[in-house]
Amino acid sequence: MISFKNLVDINRSSEVPVFIQISNTMARLIKRGTLAQKYKLPGSRALSESLNVHRKTVIAAYDELMSQGWIEIVPSKGTFVSSKLPVIAPQSIDTEDGIACPKGKAAFSYYHRSALRRDDFKTEDMLTIDEGIPDVRIAPFQEVMRHSKNILAREYNLKHLSYGSIYGDPLLRNVLADYLHETRGLNITAENVLITRGSQMGMYLATQYIIGKGDLAVVGETNYWTANLTLTDQGAELLTVPVDRDGIVTKAIEELCKTRPIKAVYVTPHHHHPTTVTLSAERRVHLVQLAEKYGFAILEDDYDYDFHYQRAPLLPLASADTDHVVYMGAICKIVAPAYRVGYMVASKDFIQEVGHLRRIVDRQGDPILERAVANMLKQGDIQRHSKKALKLYKERRDSFNMLLHKFHSKHLTFEIPEGGMAFWVGLDKRYNWDMVRAECLKRHLKIPDSKPYDPFKLGHNHNRLGFASLNYEEQEKALRILSEVISAL
Amino acid sequence: MISFKNLVDINRSSEVPVFIQISNTMARLIKRGTLAQKYKLPGSRALSESLNVHRKTVIAAYDELMSQGWIEIVPSKGTFVSSKLPVIAPQSIDTEDGIACPKGKAAFSYYHRSALRRDDFKTEDMLTIDEGIPDVRIAPFQEVMRHSKNILAREYNLKHLSYGSIYGDPLLRNVLADYLHETRGLNITAENVLITRGSQMGMYLATQYIIGKGDLAVVGETNYWTANLTLTDQGAELLTVPVDRDGIVTKAIEELCKTRPIKAVYVTPHHHHPTTVTLSAERRVHLVQLAEKYGFAILEDDYDYDFHYQRAPLLPLASADTDHVVYMGAICKIVAPAYRVGYMVASKDFIQEVGHLRRIVDRQGDPILERAVANMLKQGDIQRHSKKALKLYKERRDSFNMLLHKFHSKHLTFEIPEGGMAFWVGLDKRYNWDMVRAECLKRHLKIPDSKPYDPFKLGHNHNRLGFASLNYEEQEKALRILSEVISAL
Repeated sequence: MISFKNLVDINRSSEVPVFIQISNTMARLIKRGTLAQKYKLPGSRALSESLNVHRKTVIAAYDELMSQGWIEIVPSKGTFVSSKLPVIAPQSIDTEDGIACPKGKAAFSYYHRSALRRDDFKTEDMLTIDEGIPDVRIAPFQEVMRHSKNILAREYNLKHLSYGSIYGDPLLRNVLADYLHETRGLNITAENVLITRGSQMGMYLATQYIIGKGDLAVVGETNYWTANLTLTDQGAELLTVPVDRDGIVTKAIEELCKTRPIKAVYVTPHHHHPTTVTLSAERRVHLVQLAEKYGFAILEDDYDYDFHYQRAPLLPLASADTDHVVYMGAICKIVAPAYRVGYMVASKDFIQEVGHLRRIVDRQGDPILERAVANMLKQGDIQRHSKKALKLYKERRDSFNMLLHKFHSKHLTFEIPEGGMAFWVGLDKRYNWDMVRAECLKRHLKIPDSKPYDPFKLGHNHNRLGFASLNYEEQEKALRILSEVISAL
Repeated sequence: MISFKNLVDINRSSEVPVFIQISNTMARLIKRGTLAQKYKLPGSRALSESLNVHRKTVIAAYDELMSQGWIEIVPSKGTFVSSKLPVIAPQSIDTEDGIACPKGKAAFSYYHRSALRRDDFKTEDMLTIDEGIPDVRIAPFQEVMRHSKNILAREYNLKHLSYGSIYGDPLLRNVLADYLHETRGLNITAENVLITRGSQMGMYLATQYIIGKGDLAVVGETNYWTANLTLTDQGAELLTVPVDRDGIVTKAIEELCKTRPIKAVYVTPHHHHPTTVTLSAERRVHLVQLAEKYGFAILEDDYDYDFHYQRAPLLPLASADTDHVVYMGAICKIVAPAYRVGYMVASKDFIQEVGHLRRIVDRQGDPILERAVANMLKQGDIQRHSKKALKLYKERRDSFNMLLHKFHSKHLTFEIPEGGMAFWVGLDKRYNWDMVRAECLKRHLKIPDSKPYDPFKLGHNHNRLGFASLNYEEQEKALRILSEVISAL
């Protein structure tokens, strides 16, 4: 006689209802063969006593097991382990000890993309200076849920639960075209918009079409590392130009164009990643002129347009009357990174073409989320939130700046950024950020790994310190630890 | 004096609150320059009268415009169009008539992928026989929303609103490993699982690593068209083998292996797409043996494992004790296509590698949805629903079969499928499905385009008719029209 008391252990503090815990365990016992097919199970009363739970709980567990096909009731005979469980073929699945063993190395050959390797993103519950991401504690997720609920509250909207367009929700494409026209001066209609899952996906899709093996792409000598990876992974040869206080040096791009066929130039003009500087109006005009003269594509990554604190922001390159720009932006930077909605804006025919690749990559976006975002834009919810966030982040930028000065260390150099969510902080060449980072970790402060910010090994010894996701107390605590660590070097 | 009465028109039946309609219109008027900077706006009473709305509505609209920075209040002077609007640079954005004009052709050169071109998915409000997709009217979207709500109800869970792992939600990877072990006999742990956005994304990511230009991939001579596109887009040369009543003919694959280096074999063993036949146990064993002998990868697309109506289903190839299989499945097929969650199962090192590509494609999945799905699996919600759906779809398969016989046309040949969501229906060679489709459309019945089911132009003259998304009345209506159309040929 099997002792269920020992086999089924119940965790009353778990989120999982007790009857589910029981049915899950018993289903597993059946799979493992501990409970054989046709095995007669104890009655609900007997089991409820041996497990010391209410009889109703056992009945619920048995119903669950029945609905999943693990057990069956034979009238006037009792409850039995089902006699027809899934056939175990081609061969048995169970390892002797019943613990699944992970499959280790692929037995087939495949191509490596070592350039792509990078640590996965980890969220420790530790005080963290990130590289500049929004504070999710102010995210309007209640609004997102409310809008999603409203959409599905209407019978005729249930179609949004099925497959949708590879180009994204039609309403969102329309609303975004208006929104981008009104906020950024883009002369576009819905047909110029492809809904993506963030600016990175726009960058990926565009690169697949624009770059062929050996094509030349120009980036800043400091640049967003993931953009470099995206270009090189597709076979691009990267050429670099300097980045100064006015952004990427377009004169240097012109020199390159004179001697070599440039296919694409990647820029983050609003706030250069990682240095945070803004590309000057003169250079914007110059870059567009160069694109038209030499026929290259401008990949404009405008990931943080909404966060600018000084004067009114300059309009994106995409607002110029040209078809040379592929413009990429993200809604998730405003709402919350977890809501994966972004957009690519380009000429009609390019958007048309790229949509077909989207189909084989992941078929489409999230129809309900996209419709919810469309309604939030229409009703101004997102504009309201971004206004609110802008105000808060400006305060946090200023307090971060103040605190950096307060704990000032002669080993650090920095300037207050006009926008974005991070400071670009230089460290005295005698030290390096890896040391600082290691020491900070010992004091339970996590700071960014600076290596990705120097992809071309210039040794500028800078790091990106994000301020937006930390409130004043957190900023003070974090920067105090940082300064103590640096002073102790 | 501007007449707001004529400029602002209010649609009281719109979803958009009236005050938002007013603020949106006025914001646009400001952008368009119709309302110049520093222009003095009418008082709330005056405007409410001319627009014939409640004064509170106008005040709300003004608040909205203020919060968006379009207007400003000068104490004891009144309300004015803001004097510092975003600088319009590099140059003005407005076209003379104020209507945005779409950007047409890309001015830069890019690579075409003509093979990928295919019509976009359209949802007309028309009676439709689809190619075999779930009925979203029974989708448990309430549960999905409830679980999502519960997740964000906990302060410590707000981290799910930020960036997450490129491999997917850790809990879901664990729960899925158990679930796939228990339901499909896969000997795996979380490290063998990458969360995707559906089986197609798994297919795309795997192909990027396994296929190089000119590599040989084997598919059935009838095969899922999108899979063919995914392989050829990556540079694969496709070799085909016959598909009979026992599925793809593995003997033919063996013959190919003897003479040429096969890199990968794509299969949908559970129900071959499009013909719906199941790969026999003997051939499964044979295929795995071939993979081990010749070192190729098996791309196993198990998009509809949960829908099998005859006997208990055979276990997937991935349950065999081999590292040659990359297994792809989808949760969205069970819950609803709009909830983009799927998985790739493979050896640890392959999953590790593929994750890095995921980062540049779209960074990650939807953390909240993934966590919600994890909890739904843990608590059996998904199992319960799939049980319910299985029962319903079996009834619908049987009624569809009955109706096909009732309206029997000597021009149609078909067999009842053991599983899946569609019938594979042959049409008398004297006619073709395009004619039938065109005639059906005239009678407001949409049926699938059959061309994608004959990618290698075999002229088998079959089409896939989905039954799962239609209730009895809809099936009867649709099949009556279809038979009338065919009889009239």
